Amino acid sequence: MNDQPKRIQRIGVLTGGGDCPGLNAVIRAVTKTAIYKHNLEVLGIQDGFLGLVQNRMHPLTEHDVSGILTLGGTILGTSNKCDPARYVTKKPDGTLETHDVTDRCLEHLAINHIDALVVIGGDGTMSGAANFVRRGVNCIGVPKTIDNDLAGTDITFGFATARYVATMALDRIHTTAASHHRAMIVEVMGRNAGWIALESGIASGSDVVLIPEIPFDIQKVADYVTARSRKGRSCSILCVSEGARPLDGKQVVNHVDPTSPDPIRLGGVGKVVADQIEQMTGVETRTTVLGHIQRGGTPVPEDRVLATQFGHAAIEALTSGKRNRLIVMRGRGVTDIDILEAADKQRTITLDHPLLTAARHVGTSFGD
Amino acid sequence: MNDQPKRIQRIGVLTGGGDCPGLNAVIRAVTKTAIYKHNLEVLGIQDGFLGLVQNRMHPLTEHDVSGILTLGGTILGTSNKCDPARYVTKKPDGTLETHDVTDRCLEHLAINHIDALVVIGGDGTMSGAANFVRRGVNCIGVPKTIDNDLAGTDITFGFATARYVATMALDRIHTTAASHHRAMIVEVMGRNAGWIALESGIASGSDVVLIPEIPFDIQKVADYVTARSRKGRSCSILCVSEGARPLDGKQVVNHVDPTSPDPIRLGGVGKVVADQIEQMTGVETRTTVLGHIQRGGTPVPEDRVLATQFGHAAIEALTSGKRNRLIVMRGRGVTDIDILEAADKQRTITLDHPLLTAARHVGTSFGD
Amino acid sequence: MNDQPKRIQRIGVLTGGGDCPGLNAVIRAVTKTAIYKHNLEVLGIQDGFLGLVQNRMHPLTEHDVSGILTLGGTILGTSNKCDPARYVTKKPDGTLETHDVTDRCLEHLAINHIDALVVIGGDGTMSGAANFVRRGVNCIGVPKTIDNDLAGTDITFGFATARYVATMALDRIHTTAASHHRAMIVEVMGRNAGWIALESGIASGSDVVLIPEIPFDIQKVADYVTARSRKGRSCSILCVSEGARPLDGKQVVNHVDPTSPDPIRLGGVGKVVADQIEQMTGVETRTTVLGHIQRGGTPVPEDRVLATQFGHAAIEALTSGKRNRLIVMRGRGVTDIDILEAADKQRTITLDHPLLTAARHVGTSFGD
Amino acid sequence: MNDQPKRIQRIGVLTGGGDCPGLNAVIRAVTKTAIYKHNLEVLGIQDGFLGLVQNRMHPLTEHDVSGILTLGGTILGTSNKCDPARYVTKKPDGTLETHDVTDRCLEHLAINHIDALVVIGGDGTMSGAANFVRRGVNCIGVPKTIDNDLAGTDITFGFATARYVATMALDRIHTTAASHHRAMIVEVMGRNAGWIALESGIASGSDVVLIPEIPFDIQKVADYVTARSRKGRSCSILCVSEGARPLDGKQVVNHVDPTSPDPIRLGGVGKVVADQIEQMTGVETRTTVLGHIQRGGTPVPEDRVLATQFGHAAIEALTSGKRNRLIVMRGRGVTDIDILEAADKQRTITLDHPLLTAARHVGTSFGD
Repeated sequence: MNDQPKRIQRIGVLTGGGDCPGLNAVIRAVTKTAIYKHNLEVLGIQDGFLGLVQNRMHPLTEHDVSGILTLGGTILGTSNKCDPARYVTKKPDGTLETHDVTDRCLEHLAINHIDALVVIGGDGTMSGAANFVRRGVNCIGVPKTIDNDLAGTDITFGFATARYVATMALDRIHTTAASHHRAMIVEVMGRNAGWIALESGIASGSDVVLIPEIPFDIQKVADYVTARSRKGRSCSILCVSEGARPLDGKQVVNHVDPTSPDPIRLGGVGKVVADQIEQMTGVETRTTVLGHIQRGGTPVPEDRVLATQFGHAAIEALTSGKRNRLIVMRGRGVTDIDILEAADKQRTITLDHPLLTAARHVGTSFGD
Repeated sequence: MNDQPKRIQRIGVLTGGGDCPGLNAVIRAVTKTAIYKHNLEVLGIQDGFLGLVQNRMHPLTEHDVSGILTLGGTILGTSNKCDPARYVTKKPDGTLETHDVTDRCLEHLAINHIDALVVIGGDGTMSGAANFVRRGVNCIGVPKTIDNDLAGTDITFGFATARYVATMALDRIHTTAASHHRAMIVEVMGRNAGWIALESGIASGSDVVLIPEIPFDIQKVADYVTARSRKGRSCSILCVSEGARPLDGKQVVNHVDPTSPDPIRLGGVGKVVADQIEQMTGVETRTTVLGHIQRGGTPVPEDRVLATQFGHAAIEALTSGKRNRLIVMRGRGVTDIDILEAADKQRTITLDHPLLTAARHVGTSFGD
Repeated sequence: MNDQPKRIQRIGVLTGGGDCPGLNAVIRAVTKTAIYKHNLEVLGIQDGFLGLVQNRMHPLTEHDVSGILTLGGTILGTSNKCDPARYVTKKPDGTLETHDVTDRCLEHLAINHIDALVVIGGDGTMSGAANFVRRGVNCIGVPKTIDNDLAGTDITFGFATARYVATMALDRIHTTAASHHRAMIVEVMGRNAGWIALESGIASGSDVVLIPEIPFDIQKVADYVTARSRKGRSCSILCVSEGARPLDGKQVVNHVDPTSPDPIRLGGVGKVVADQIEQMTGVETRTTVLGHIQRGGTPVPEDRVLATQFGHAAIEALTSGKRNRLIVMRGRGVTDIDILEAADKQRTITLDHPLLTAARHVGTSFGD
Repeated sequence: MNDQPKRIQRIGVLTGGGDCPGLNAVIRAVTKTAIYKHNLEVLGIQDGFLGLVQNRMHPLTEHDVSGILTLGGTILGTSNKCDPARYVTKKPDGTLETHDVTDRCLEHLAINHIDALVVIGGDGTMSGAANFVRRGVNCIGVPKTIDNDLAGTDITFGFATARYVATMALDRIHTTAASHHRAMIVEVMGRNAGWIALESGIASGSDVVLIPEIPFDIQKVADYVTARSRKGRSCSILCVSEGARPLDGKQVVNHVDPTSPDPIRLGGVGKVVADQIEQMTGVETRTTVLGHIQRGGTPVPEDRVLATQFGHAAIEALTSGKRNRLIVMRGRGVTDIDILEAADKQRTITLDHPLLTAARHVGTSFGD
């Protein structure tokens, strides 16, 4: 690594964290822009930082990235929780041990003559990158999150596809609700931010939307469902973020724990809300948890375009001499910010957000 | 009711049981054929047999059925478990009471001058119809089942849509599995018959398909997943019917029961299989339960065509003097059988079914 | 009409120009916000300005707009070229006559006690609205264009759906091109602006994108196709705006004119390009013209959300006392500008637009 | 080649004719069944019979066919009109010459130790195969046709996908028709048989369906559109096979011929019908020609299952000692017939076909 950005000849690219529609589109844009425009070599590092630790990487050619634009997932593979600064191994006796293997990674970067890294990932992956930045490696980050909750950028790829999948599912659920006079609960992704629930709720005309940002009063939700019944609306659709939580502040956990004595913990928040609503209103309920279909599969066109822009911008930033930037979208324009600036900050829905207001005014209840 | 079929002037139509893509297409074809071709009047009975008990019905015109061909659900509404021979009411003290309200239904048929019924539904609904057949009402049945498990017919509408939704979901899941080197389990509908799992499993290239007809040996499933890992296939897709069960014969139940002492009962079979596979193989697993999105929403073209044929055939049967027939598909042709003939029989997958053999030969494991 | 905006009690809403996915979502948001939030009455005017001329309008209730969010088209109907200031009628002898029927429209507004108009449409419809603005009618415009070429707003609803339909079609075309070693030409909408071609071209990985803003040199296009063949890429995808035109400046017209002596005018630009490329390169070509499927049918979620925001904002503008505003999107925020400000200006792709640059750098040819 | 089928060790597979969703699913099932079940070697022959003439073929492994199930097109490539018995080459002076190069192909089969051929294609490809059958090569045919018009089989893969694409397009067109009070004409594939038009017409609720089997009277079509207008139905949808023709017997050709003096030949039958209907009824019309998007892209699940069954059955036929069979679907079962039996026969829609009757009874006009 050195300070003369003009010397960049070979870059490494990796994807970290959960998969996300558009990752391959970024990899393709990075590789094509690097090769076609700047005559750089590109090495694909396998399975996120794990491939850097284990020195698993291979050249990416124009041919390797041909046809991947429409594919979900990542051709490079990913690893969920590999941070070289806190690398976990198992000792012979079965206990776990944590090491800092950053030096080993730096060695692998040097051996492979990698002049800079394009790091595609979310919060966790950018924390991993920060470690390398501190050691002098030029890292250009490309932000990735299904939930759209990364600070610093107005939008990231993957979100539009998740919104699409969730909305299509809500559309399908609607007819069942109407035919059976039921309240149908659909649990969508969003642990800390309710963007998917809010936008797919608006897009599908959901009656109730529950998001992490607005703790809900289950009595108000029940009253709303009852009021709809009285108006002759025989069904209600509730779109619920997995991270939605009741007013009393207890987080409703998402996974069944058979050893837990706490019955509210059986099933995610969607199931809990369904059970309570059925009991309080007498309206039959059903729950669907969309899960991983929101994050897999071919990206919608919006995400393909956005991911292409981000991948392209990463190489443009690198080749114009920038160091340690995060590619972001501000308004309708792609730009970049310091890669450390957005770390550990989240973009949640503010209570005065215009989308929230619009949703309320067209009749959506947020249970508050 | 009388025996001279030529006198039919007004028919009633109702939909019973769970909703199913194509119900509206049947209602439309019944109504249009009745009006355009035979100059009959059609009354739409609301919420299945419940509307017959409560005398809730209204004329269906050409206008009412315009534009409903592509809609999921049923414009008539449905009720899940209403059988007039065993009609349940609540007494003032809160206890439940069962009556036979067939006479009341017959009276409502007479009052409304209904000469025959078109009854669209599954097993339960046809049992309800049998009761009216025995009382002299001419009932023409149109079979409906997502699971495709009705005896007497090679195929019913709704199945193709469920297969489509399940396959599209499996396609999306595939990319996540590959990117994360995981085993992904997708639980699809099918309590007693594994048609959806088998066909969407074949269509998506699933590695393992577990169906109610073939009790699975979890060790064989685990061995298969491990063998794939050893061959360098870093991911496996398991498509599991909700009614799949392990070899030891215990049915894995589908709904969480917080009062149950049995930990295996927490979560459906998909979750149970996932947990066991992860433990036995060390491969990370994730489960998705598709649920109601399989039975709602716009029907695929195949179901629209089939439902139109069935609705049309019901009116043709009626107007040609037939009594108490069930419209069925045999091979590629629509025909009819005695409405009582198929009752309480199920069409499950035989162990020598050619589809099963084809699936095995292209490498699918059924865990046996 | 008067100047005290607080007095607004009843509004009229109309849709003009070609249909566009999201129109019904705007109508729904206008109606629900008006009724739920502000207790206003809403009159739906039929078939654009034509309904105003002919006094065809009816109250819109919550019930009328229930379930229309997902529907393509407009429940109000539209008319393509009705401008009350230049209203065309046919005289008994068959000749056409043009009148100004604005007074008649004003009378119908007065009779129906309409205090303000929400006018949803494109350039032509806004010109029609301008006429009423000048006569003292408070008009709030909601911009609509498939092509995304309206000045004043960064984006309008309908565009995302058109881009989606075009991209899905291009995805399908790709496999045929590869299997047959052909150049496949897909002609998409966009007379004066190439947004649909540019974004669906990027999203589908098209090799060549031809847009109205960049006159193309057919020799360069042919050279590019030949160069791909030489590199072993046996197929090429060309995504062509209907308004794309060759360097020599002659607009290639879109409709066949059997009386024309000019053979180049037979077929749209897509067909013309295909014929020339086949002749110049020897590569077999096929053309598909997507046509109206780009502008019909259910909107994608993005358009549903945007249309809901626009409809909501129109009522908020009205009820906060604003007059004669056009609702627009700037960056990621909805705001409003003078309704006359954007008239007759178009938002075309500038030659230094970052999307254009990104597309070039990943290898797309624009034929220049 | 010899008569002892047990000796089969290596097979060749090729795809001929136009591409078709499901070709890759057949190739995959052929390869996997051959390798997994029967331990055969598989050679993929490139670009149909052309690869046999030019000796271009390569081994297909399990790895090569992994992930291709969902891909449209054919990984082997195809050639449209290559028949080794009438192989066309260009002489130095530019004139064309026809040779019989069958001997050269037989030599290539011998050199590569190919014991039998799996030939996937339509009418033309099976004629090509017949030539090899006569020379003693064991050919197992797998029928392929988008149009579903091959005699001998009740259904072939590809058709369901074409029907799906056509129906989705018709769904989108519907809303435009209704909003604009237009007659919308959609031209779909089907030169000699109207299956796509009939089934997608039924599935979309088209008002008029024009198919090659029923010559249409344009006056009756116009009368039908007018009658709908009078009933207050402001729009009509016409689904027209590319091979539909008017009663007077003149085939309306599909491609523009700029040198033709005959104006009716400008545009396909869809455009011609549109122009005539507009003139005769005064209703505004628009035409969409779906073209190649009907035959490209990912197959619907039905086609993936069917193609898998066909590919599997081809290998089962071969390995059980059968010679020169065509895999077909009869009713709901896969079986085989003599490969020469179906040659040059077409399966068109008979005038008493039940689907036709059902369509008529629900109100569809066939213009007769």
